[in-house]
Amino acid sequence: MQPMIAALERLSRRLHSNTLFEWVTVAVILVSSLTIGAKSYTLPPQAEQVVLALDAAITVYFLVEIIVRVLAAGGFRAFFRSGWNIFDFIIVAISLIPVPAEQDYVLLARLLRLFRVMRLIVIVPQLRAMVGALLRVLPRINYVALMMFIIFYIYGVIGTSLFERIDPSLWGDVGVAMLTLFRVATLEDWTDVMYATMEHYPWSWLYFVSFIFLSAFIFLNMMIGVIVESLSEEYGAEEQAREQQRRAEMETRLQRIEDKLQQLLDRGAPPGGGN
Amino acid sequence: MQPMIAALERLSRRLHSNTLFEWVTVAVILVSSLTIGAKSYTLPPQAEQVVLALDAAITVYFLVEIIVRVLAAGGFRAFFRSGWNIFDFIIVAISLIPVPAEQDYVLLARLLRLFRVMRLIVIVPQLRAMVGALLRVLPRINYVALMMFIIFYIYGVIGTSLFERIDPSLWGDVGVAMLTLFRVATLEDWTDVMYATMEHYPWSWLYFVSFIFLSAFIFLNMMIGVIVESLSEEYGAEEQAREQQRRAEMETRLQRIEDKLQQLLDRGAPPGGGN
Amino acid sequence: MQPMIAALERLSRRLHSNTLFEWVTVAVILVSSLTIGAKSYTLPPQAEQVVLALDAAITVYFLVEIIVRVLAAGGFRAFFRSGWNIFDFIIVAISLIPVPAEQDYVLLARLLRLFRVMRLIVIVPQLRAMVGALLRVLPRINYVALMMFIIFYIYGVIGTSLFERIDPSLWGDVGVAMLTLFRVATLEDWTDVMYATMEHYPWSWLYFVSFIFLSAFIFLNMMIGVIVESLSEEYGAEEQAREQQRRAEMETRLQRIEDKLQQLLDRGAPPGGGN
Amino acid sequence: MQPMIAALERLSRRLHSNTLFEWVTVAVILVSSLTIGAKSYTLPPQAEQVVLALDAAITVYFLVEIIVRVLAAGGFRAFFRSGWNIFDFIIVAISLIPVPAEQDYVLLARLLRLFRVMRLIVIVPQLRAMVGALLRVLPRINYVALMMFIIFYIYGVIGTSLFERIDPSLWGDVGVAMLTLFRVATLEDWTDVMYATMEHYPWSWLYFVSFIFLSAFIFLNMMIGVIVESLSEEYGAEEQAREQQRRAEMETRLQRIEDKLQQLLDRGAPPGGGN
Repeated sequence: MQPMIAALERLSRRLHSNTLFEWVTVAVILVSSLTIGAKSYTLPPQAEQVVLALDAAITVYFLVEIIVRVLAAGGFRAFFRSGWNIFDFIIVAISLIPVPAEQDYVLLARLLRLFRVMRLIVIVPQLRAMVGALLRVLPRINYVALMMFIIFYIYGVIGTSLFERIDPSLWGDVGVAMLTLFRVATLEDWTDVMYATMEHYPWSWLYFVSFIFLSAFIFLNMMIGVIVESLSEEYGAEEQAREQQRRAEMETRLQRIEDKLQQLLDRGAPPGGGN
Repeated sequence: MQPMIAALERLSRRLHSNTLFEWVTVAVILVSSLTIGAKSYTLPPQAEQVVLALDAAITVYFLVEIIVRVLAAGGFRAFFRSGWNIFDFIIVAISLIPVPAEQDYVLLARLLRLFRVMRLIVIVPQLRAMVGALLRVLPRINYVALMMFIIFYIYGVIGTSLFERIDPSLWGDVGVAMLTLFRVATLEDWTDVMYATMEHYPWSWLYFVSFIFLSAFIFLNMMIGVIVESLSEEYGAEEQAREQQRRAEMETRLQRIEDKLQQLLDRGAPPGGGN
Repeated sequence: MQPMIAALERLSRRLHSNTLFEWVTVAVILVSSLTIGAKSYTLPPQAEQVVLALDAAITVYFLVEIIVRVLAAGGFRAFFRSGWNIFDFIIVAISLIPVPAEQDYVLLARLLRLFRVMRLIVIVPQLRAMVGALLRVLPRINYVALMMFIIFYIYGVIGTSLFERIDPSLWGDVGVAMLTLFRVATLEDWTDVMYATMEHYPWSWLYFVSFIFLSAFIFLNMMIGVIVESLSEEYGAEEQAREQQRRAEMETRLQRIEDKLQQLLDRGAPPGGGN
Repeated sequence: MQPMIAALERLSRRLHSNTLFEWVTVAVILVSSLTIGAKSYTLPPQAEQVVLALDAAITVYFLVEIIVRVLAAGGFRAFFRSGWNIFDFIIVAISLIPVPAEQDYVLLARLLRLFRVMRLIVIVPQLRAMVGALLRVLPRINYVALMMFIIFYIYGVIGTSLFERIDPSLWGDVGVAMLTLFRVATLEDWTDVMYATMEHYPWSWLYFVSFIFLSAFIFLNMMIGVIVESLSEEYGAEEQAREQQRRAEMETRLQRIEDKLQQLLDRGAPPGGGN
């Protein structure tokens, strides 16, 4: 048994580092995703048959692929050290859950398989980097989001207090009012909302205009947070490293000059004294 | 009496610097805010009872908390030196105003308590920094706002002069016309407004298109003002300080080299002269 | 006559450099503008009387003010050397044109006076700087505008060729089609336009989606042009000047070190040779 | 034959480097484009005659002009070495295709000639640079587009699965659902779509709000990609070259100082040793 596993591991490692293997995996993921999308169209019976067969083939391929990757990593423990691998494994595992073929479960089955598309994010490094950037930006956006919530909440409570009887479907409770405010923040038909309230409160335009200014300012702040973060990532690290190096070189050079001068001074003294 | 107050002050200071105390305050503020929002939903009678009890408890807590903070600061005079503390004190004071429980005053009572949410801005330092940034940006935006007002005003007067008889609800007077122009600047159903005017003045699209371009340019200017301010804040100060320091170090080093050279020159002269 | 004019000139210069005079002028401009806006509201007869009197007073003030400024500059020739002065003079001159008080000319009279608001731009230096920035950015935006026109034109001709019979009010000729495309570029109810065309050409979504992407890209380009220009203005000149100065200082220092070394070398040679 | 061709070539080269020739070409292209646009208006018969004559003249001019440019380049081989020339040649060639004058082919003929406008991009260098910038940015945007597709696809499949029976015209299949999602991403009447689904799934606002946040984030990412690229193009290359040069100069200077010191050390040693 042992040598067989070792041989398999070697084979897996060779497969894993093969670019073709990666490309095939990406292609299989894409086909798998398109299969799920294809089901939303009314297909001829043969095509449905093909889709079903493809589905089975893809499931088998994913099973084999994940085994190869686990073996290539050298066992489950090493494989699960990476968060991305855990994420990947869960997606594959979920998509393998057998779902009853009854009508009621069609939606669930489809969604479970849909998440395979997200495997692309794990496998394509550039996408992984983008998600990483998103996650790194989140803490910076954190407090902006809190600020946004405070403003939405204050305006939401005021809105529901003042305008509830005008249109309960828009201002019925704080939750609905905040959804309406989100709509106003996206500038989507916000004047319809405003003109309705202005019939009862002619000054209510102040409520909407001030809210739009505040939410635009906060959105701008969030955007700037992301831009500053991205720019400093882009230039910061790399640029500063190079700068550091150049500075170090110049320091060395100046040090050498100083040392030589010191040598001259040290040497000059005794002979000068002995003159 | 004196020693009791001193003991209270010491206790207050210890409480104030306690992180738990801060977190409890933040939690109480959040609960307080959610209570106000909860009132917008139709609650079962018991829940209403709970909300009422909570309300009383929160009021007491805020009272105690502000006393603790005043004592920790060492009296009212020291406490009121910070603008934020004044702001905070006013919010708490306002929310303590007893409002008659009659139907007519429900809205007022609710709003007075709502502003407690803004205490979060005072207590969470990051939010305080954000509001500070907003205030620092304002003078920069100042003249952009004046420019915006001039353009809105000119277009408003032209609009009300030309289009008043087409739709008085949109162009009735300069105020309404400027609100309509704000709507156009947010691109909200602006073609509805334009198509109506184009029936009478086929060239009126020039009015709208030029206004959209101008207001977009001004908005862009405002945005750039904020971005430039933020970027220079982010990099400027810190970066320049470091740059300054590096430069100073290099200067010192060069000065040392020059001094040594001078030493050599000074020493060399007399012996050379005495040769 | 001569000494009187000289005295007037001296008085004008003193007035012109007086800050109070400037503030009064700004106030009069603002009042003048608000007067024009006020006419759009239905005013009580007395107020109308006041507005009329104000109007006359403002006209006189502007006349006096421009004379003061011409005298302060030392005659018309010197005054008209600045483009801003010419602009200012034209605005004042236009607003002095007597317009018949009949109903037909009300609009014209109002507009002629409205342009006085623009005097603010001449008198407040910050606004003048902003307009200057706008004008400086224009050449940069120039070619982006040409590109935009090319894309609008191509899509306009395609649109009018394909969709004319669907809705002539939107696609009747190239001009109207380009206006419709501007609407689509501002994302204003663009799906209404698209769904109508998709009933005849199911693939016409490609036309709209590609146009939105292209126009968004071009708008982005224009925005970046303005941002880059603003940033380089903000940092570029000033920052580079300081950098230049620091570099020059370091150069001088290094030169001094080198000179001293040369001195040492020169001096050392003969005695060393004579040793 | 040979000397005639040589003479023609010389003439072509002189023409090609003539600025007037370029301006005439730009003018002809503009007239050519406007001719096509003019056809969308109902013209008087004489004007139609003029347009027809102009069309013929323009076709001849383009033919001559491309021959001149081929000759100036020194034959077809040299001419086709530039991708822009190939693009230009294809546009001219296409617009020369004779199209039957029947009603059915009017649209085709118009479009073929329309693409002549794109010749402007080839001939005006600034537009060529802008298209070049767009093409250089594309690879950077590449993976953002893939990410966008993944998110649109996931939301599209979920949308079609959940909302198909609510409104098949919006959620009928994955393709239509993704078009609806593009509409939501542009914030165009997205609440109409949401309110319809919320009647069946009260929590479906989560679907829309999360999608708007995700797509806004991705759009922001794409924008930042373009901005960073543009900024680094603007400053990067040129700035770094100058920086490099300054550094090189300082290095030379320091090297010279060090050399002189070494000279001093070397000279001092033997006499010192010989002392």
